[in-house]
Amino acid sequence: MKKTLFALAAFSLPVAASAQLGVDDSSDQRVAAAADAALEQDVLAWDFVEGITTEVGPRQAGTEAEARGRAWAMRWLKARGFANVADEPYQMQTWVPGDVHKAEVVGPFPQPLVVQPLGGSASTGPDGITGEVVFFRTVDDLRAAPEGSLKGKIAYISHAMTPTQDGSHYGFAGPARWVGAGIAAQKGALATVIKSVGTDLHRNPHTGGTGFPAGVQPTPAGALSVPDALNLERMFARAGDRPIILKLILTPRNLGTTTSGNVVGEIVGRDPSLPPVLVACHIDSWWNGTGAIDDGVGCGIVAAAALNVSKAGQPLRTIRVLMAGAEETGLWGSKAYSAAHIGEPIAVGLESDFGADRIWKFESNFRESNAALHNRIARSVVRFGVSNGMAVATGGADINIARDQDTAIIDLQQDGTRYFDLHHTPDDTLDKIDPVQLRQNVAVWTQVVGILANEPGEIRPKP
Amino acid sequence: MKKTLFALAAFSLPVAASAQLGVDDSSDQRVAAAADAALEQDVLAWDFVEGITTEVGPRQAGTEAEARGRAWAMRWLKARGFANVADEPYQMQTWVPGDVHKAEVVGPFPQPLVVQPLGGSASTGPDGITGEVVFFRTVDDLRAAPEGSLKGKIAYISHAMTPTQDGSHYGFAGPARWVGAGIAAQKGALATVIKSVGTDLHRNPHTGGTGFPAGVQPTPAGALSVPDALNLERMFARAGDRPIILKLILTPRNLGTTTSGNVVGEIVGRDPSLPPVLVACHIDSWWNGTGAIDDGVGCGIVAAAALNVSKAGQPLRTIRVLMAGAEETGLWGSKAYSAAHIGEPIAVGLESDFGADRIWKFESNFRESNAALHNRIARSVVRFGVSNGMAVATGGADINIARDQDTAIIDLQQDGTRYFDLHHTPDDTLDKIDPVQLRQNVAVWTQVVGILANEPGEIRPKP
Repeated sequence: MKKTLFALAAFSLPVAASAQLGVDDSSDQRVAAAADAALEQDVLAWDFVEGITTEVGPRQAGTEAEARGRAWAMRWLKARGFANVADEPYQMQTWVPGDVHKAEVVGPFPQPLVVQPLGGSASTGPDGITGEVVFFRTVDDLRAAPEGSLKGKIAYISHAMTPTQDGSHYGFAGPARWVGAGIAAQKGALATVIKSVGTDLHRNPHTGGTGFPAGVQPTPAGALSVPDALNLERMFARAGDRPIILKLILTPRNLGTTTSGNVVGEIVGRDPSLPPVLVACHIDSWWNGTGAIDDGVGCGIVAAAALNVSKAGQPLRTIRVLMAGAEETGLWGSKAYSAAHIGEPIAVGLESDFGADRIWKFESNFRESNAALHNRIARSVVRFGVSNGMAVATGGADINIARDQDTAIIDLQQDGTRYFDLHHTPDDTLDKIDPVQLRQNVAVWTQVVGILANEPGEIRPKP
Repeated sequence: MKKTLFALAAFSLPVAASAQLGVDDSSDQRVAAAADAALEQDVLAWDFVEGITTEVGPRQAGTEAEARGRAWAMRWLKARGFANVADEPYQMQTWVPGDVHKAEVVGPFPQPLVVQPLGGSASTGPDGITGEVVFFRTVDDLRAAPEGSLKGKIAYISHAMTPTQDGSHYGFAGPARWVGAGIAAQKGALATVIKSVGTDLHRNPHTGGTGFPAGVQPTPAGALSVPDALNLERMFARAGDRPIILKLILTPRNLGTTTSGNVVGEIVGRDPSLPPVLVACHIDSWWNGTGAIDDGVGCGIVAAAALNVSKAGQPLRTIRVLMAGAEETGLWGSKAYSAAHIGEPIAVGLESDFGADRIWKFESNFRESNAALHNRIARSVVRFGVSNGMAVATGGADINIARDQDTAIIDLQQDGTRYFDLHHTPDDTLDKIDPVQLRQNVAVWTQVVGILANEPGEIRPKP
């Protein structure tokens, strides 16, 4: 259905599309043609994500593998004509997952369970820890447990995440991962395991960062794959009064301060004195996948769009690509970029960091303050099946600078229905990317960035 | 669509179904009613497979875990009224996978790959082995490689397996696993890795047995998950003249001779002098999953059907359930059962060992020799969406005795479209079983076994 729609749009509109947009500026016509062409034939975004996942693979934040990812991306950007390609360094605290990740039910139903550490987890040591598992259906149930009641025990947190197009169940189910281990540690828990915050049924745990409140000693914290979590829950139903005893081995380490970096590159505009359009993604990934949908493909989309716009004629404004480092373990790169560049105004910020499925909604934070431009952009992407959203865009993790500068932000909302099948898992691999939907992303981005980069006026006029 | 069909069949036919079968024997009517009831409400098969996967988990052939599986199954059978429940021991050669399964591309594109050993693989030792990877598209390409040409190298075998309803691509793609490592070893290879013989795109390798010809020293042999194999193949496309160097650590061990066993139990018939109906499955599983679809659920189906038939009135013939041991590593249990019982004729053998998706075709090996019975059975399962197949049933791995005795065999062919997404992987877990399709299996089995167990005449008359 989606593919049919795209194909219809592409076959009926490509040449005449720009004329139908109601604008007569020649750059707009060229941009629209470039977007139409991208829908049919873009290979740049695929080339980026295929290349970085094949030639580099996983890019854990702060590590040598992330540095190889930066070097690879810089070579790619330079080879395709980006100017001012650089690796802007910053310091960060680096956590690595270690080698051994095991969970085993010791009794009453002995069997292994598949587990991986959460980012920020402490180590159990190589010999592991063993304790009774205490079941909590939700984080609120855990919060209600008496202080000290978890001493010597392992907290398990369940919840129910289901697929949603807008990804909003991540906000609903995510706290089990984000704060669960910290709350359990405050109540004396030896360790915490959670049902993966994910929507699939594969033996591939969803990792991701977890936080411990100031003054609370981090404990080991891991995610069971959803099938293993369901198995553990069935054990509770069948064990009666018998305690469920779990042995857990997780051996992550903190490496202390290491140097990471942000990769930047530019399509230089005709008037470099105008604030640039910032298009962002992140270059790092969790260790367990290859960082295809999170977020190699986002970097491919924004870079391909910038190139497509440049091929339609040098844009008025500079388009700056930011491939932020170390997003996954605390937005280190995004924060460092904002700190380093806070004094250099950007015109507008956009990021791609939600996979490669189709864009279905356009949102900005200048719907009212610059209705003409908002509506012009909204009209321009209707032919790609993108609706005009009512919400105020707030941007994502990689464009802290746009929020810090209180500037214009656009969100090109992607279909997240299957994103949390793959997010932060070993299954984040190239084969999950649908080339047809990826091209729709590049087409929409080419269209939107093309309009923004050729816009002479202020994009979000200050009130 | 399938669910709708089943529901229609169930709602329109349950009470009157037996009358429509064109038979007037009262046992036939009761059996048909029991089958109809199973379609709507059977919980026995689910209870078996939920129980054994939750309370026992993986049951690697010849190990203590398999023995726990036998003990669990015997308790279940006794608790539900089976007679003559026993664990019939035999000796076998036992292989175990060991703890460490790692593959890592050393160069030119360093990154880890997900691998698991094939059954029968030798160990690399804890320090692993490192060698250049030589690409073979097919087993035939490998066969054509000159003798000695793989000395010091690691053979990689690709192929293309796609989903098929009848599972026939297993025969097409399977040799890469069954004989690839042996052929490579004969040509001097240090080790072999294959693309998993599977149809999914998850980072869960498909293990399974591999064989080495007599006189050929076994080498390490592993399966990459399909996404990892595709990544390796992209590396070949991008590496140019640079060799791809792989480090492989697999630490399986041979334990020598251990004792395993076959679990048997009976619904005793009114005339125990008649040869029994043998319904079979296997109790062991590979270590990496929990043996849900392969083959905990098969044991649940055959046991549930036997119980359902018995509840419809004591059958004429005894129904014997065989839960064979150690199928996966060489049909040890099936062969031992045949050797021990070859002198005790069975009337007919059937097995369930292809997952839990719906049965779509009925086949026998007495279509011509006992057309009346064949056609009566075929007519009886039309209402469950099962067609009358033309092929001659040959039975499966767990009923060697039926072939050895040259007796009657029935194959109730299941839909294998998604079976090889899960087969021999960590993803073989309870959540993959569709309870609606499982009940259709139990209904068809109840119907067919009910007819067979009440059949006074010889089922496959000898010519």
